Amino acid sequence: MYALTVRDHIMIAHSFVGEIFGPAQKLHGATFVVDAEFRRPGLSPDGLVVDIGEASALLKEVLTPLNYQNLDELSDFRGRNTTTEFLAGEIHRRIKARIAEGALGEHGRGLAGLKITLHESHAAWASFEGPVA
Amino acid sequence: MYALTVRDHIMIAHSFVGEIFGPAQKLHGATFVVDAEFRRPGLSPDGLVVDIGEASALLKEVLTPLNYQNLDELSDFRGRNTTTEFLAGEIHRRIKARIAEGALGEHGRGLAGLKITLHESHAAWASFEGPVA
Amino acid sequence: MYALTVRDHIMIAHSFVGEIFGPAQKLHGATFVVDAEFRRPGLSPDGLVVDIGEASALLKEVLTPLNYQNLDELSDFRGRNTTTEFLAGEIHRRIKARIAEGALGEHGRGLAGLKITLHESHAAWASFEGPVA
Amino acid sequence: MYALTVRDHIMIAHSFVGEIFGPAQKLHGATFVVDAEFRRPGLSPDGLVVDIGEASALLKEVLTPLNYQNLDELSDFRGRNTTTEFLAGEIHRRIKARIAEGALGEHGRGLAGLKITLHESHAAWASFEGPVA
Amino acid sequence: MYALTVRDHIMIAHSFVGEIFGPAQKLHGATFVVDAEFRRPGLSPDGLVVDIGEASALLKEVLTPLNYQNLDELSDFRGRNTTTEFLAGEIHRRIKARIAEGALGEHGRGLAGLKITLHESHAAWASFEGPVA
Amino acid sequence: MYALTVRDHIMIAHSFVGEIFGPAQKLHGATFVVDAEFRRPGLSPDGLVVDIGEASALLKEVLTPLNYQNLDELSDFRGRNTTTEFLAGEIHRRIKARIAEGALGEHGRGLAGLKITLHESHAAWASFEGPVA
Repeated sequence: MYALTVRDHIMIAHSFVGEIFGPAQKLHGATFVVDAEFRRPGLSPDGLVVDIGEASALLKEVLTPLNYQNLDELSDFRGRNTTTEFLAGEIHRRIKARIAEGALGEHGRGLAGLKITLHESHAAWASFEGPVA
Repeated sequence: MYALTVRDHIMIAHSFVGEIFGPAQKLHGATFVVDAEFRRPGLSPDGLVVDIGEASALLKEVLTPLNYQNLDELSDFRGRNTTTEFLAGEIHRRIKARIAEGALGEHGRGLAGLKITLHESHAAWASFEGPVA
Repeated sequence: MYALTVRDHIMIAHSFVGEIFGPAQKLHGATFVVDAEFRRPGLSPDGLVVDIGEASALLKEVLTPLNYQNLDELSDFRGRNTTTEFLAGEIHRRIKARIAEGALGEHGRGLAGLKITLHESHAAWASFEGPVA
Repeated sequence: MYALTVRDHIMIAHSFVGEIFGPAQKLHGATFVVDAEFRRPGLSPDGLVVDIGEASALLKEVLTPLNYQNLDELSDFRGRNTTTEFLAGEIHRRIKARIAEGALGEHGRGLAGLKITLHESHAAWASFEGPVA
Repeated sequence: MYALTVRDHIMIAHSFVGEIFGPAQKLHGATFVVDAEFRRPGLSPDGLVVDIGEASALLKEVLTPLNYQNLDELSDFRGRNTTTEFLAGEIHRRIKARIAEGALGEHGRGLAGLKITLHESHAAWASFEGPVA
Repeated sequence: MYALTVRDHIMIAHSFVGEIFGPAQKLHGATFVVDAEFRRPGLSPDGLVVDIGEASALLKEVLTPLNYQNLDELSDFRGRNTTTEFLAGEIHRRIKARIAEGALGEHGRGLAGLKITLHESHAAWASFEGPVA
């Protein structure tokens, strides 16, 4: 299995509901350094998993509506704790949907899997991986 | 599959038995930066793989009996080479046992997998991954 | 010149005032991975710049009132943009004041300099360095 | 599953054929930081996935014919785009062939898998993973 | 002293003249991850060393004529070995000249120093630092 | 000022004397990832601070007598706590002495400064910097 990963980041505010979160129940924030790993059993005729420029552009397109936001105010996330792992899953769903719409072109449809990792600090990170087709 | 990873470290002394180890047959030591990756097919009602505070506390609990030790003197490791990969497996077994005892609460029992990675330098690391339930 | 550095992190929300900040004028947030570098021309009788445990504890003590906060609501920062570089300077001032009060003991008074670095992402960081005595 | 990873690097020149590559159609170059992850279900009698010295030596042996080369001039790559993902696959094939020839000794034949990752910058990397036996 | 650093990268081909360079006398290449650290004794009225967006744009502007090039063919570098340390100095001179022309606006003229670091691998990097005004 | 840095590592055992060290009074160990930064106001005729191969070889030469050792048993360190900062200073002294003996050739005598940094974990490191001529 081949894979290509590109990295970007977002800076958001949010708060959590539930005693388990302790001080993180207050409005705070995070930088998430986001890695998107695209997987494919074989290479395209150009020798690619996916074009690195197109992969980076798609990641940025999906991150932009989240960047510099207070996630507590986004209707998509009403009633949800926007934990690092939840956001990894959500970004996965959004990129998967855009690939299905053809965002990575004809060869993007040959992708087998996608793993999204969000680094929240030097000592903790979370991910979601799953198929894209 | 969702995953959450937390990082800690230990500083130990040890020596190895066997010609293949060359100068590492002498008493030397290592810092192991330890990553524990907890995996779960779905999120808890709070939106978590596992609480990051509880995960960090469990990792530290398991690392503490190893930290600042000469591993050659620990009866648990008698007759074993405490290589980086062996220790990754051993830490996996100890965390798995603690999860089975309920150390991560009710939701901890929903965990599917655990991967332990020990970084021994900027140029080498080892891991063990396996199921926890 | 000798130096010892310890690392910790905080997760905060804030917003900026001024057109130059673009989308960062909205309430957003950041993880700041914070490095505190303590400098000293010679070592203590124990062979230390400063005890690593005491240095880590002092850094955490100073970071705690900022961690999990919306900095826009802290009276200390009223009318100030809590940029990464401003916060590096502020954390420097607070640690310097605590050292002057004796927080690092007798030998802490022999420190010559302190550099605080805040990493806001994988691609940007800021720092403030200055004397502590 | 146990794994051991070692790291090395190469510095190469190359160019790509195809409009999708934009400015990378010109002769340019890259540093590839190369990670080789060796996987094995159990440990050798010495407690190893593979000896770290032998693993590092095998990685260097396979990288040497590529290091400090203009890949456009190597006959092995005629008519191929030497993309990061292609090279990950190629290095995998070469190490796999050497293991089959006994380069990692008797125990090397017990290896189950191999993952090769090439980091091309701080923000992009590619890999190939597959069985070795 | 305050400082702000931004990171970008370039991918270039080149060769060196001189026996000391061994195999690097052949045409090869490198990824240089480039850090530009801007220094200033005090902050601007907005609380900045320099705007991070403007700093990143200026770094990219200066790197673009070098990116995806065979440096051996650039007339600016005729008769020079484009070593990592030489390029750090050259990028410093180019950014300094653009600041003098006003590229970072009125407040850019208050900058005291600039340090350029080029990482050529996980195990080697070079830098040049000097005044900008 | 130009600088070139090379990285290597050692794995050692040791113990400390003094209550301030707590559990580190017991025999334990560390991996030290060691960075040696060589500084020079101008470049050599070849365009170098120092040849990267020679710098790496000199660093390894100085580290070898320490690597895989129990530092408590080395006569050079009798009665000293081999703290991270102490070792940074010691490695500085040894490299400086070798440069004075001509280990980096004629141009090595033009070096102005040297900074040695020892990373003991992902969250702590120490350094010593000073002149070499």
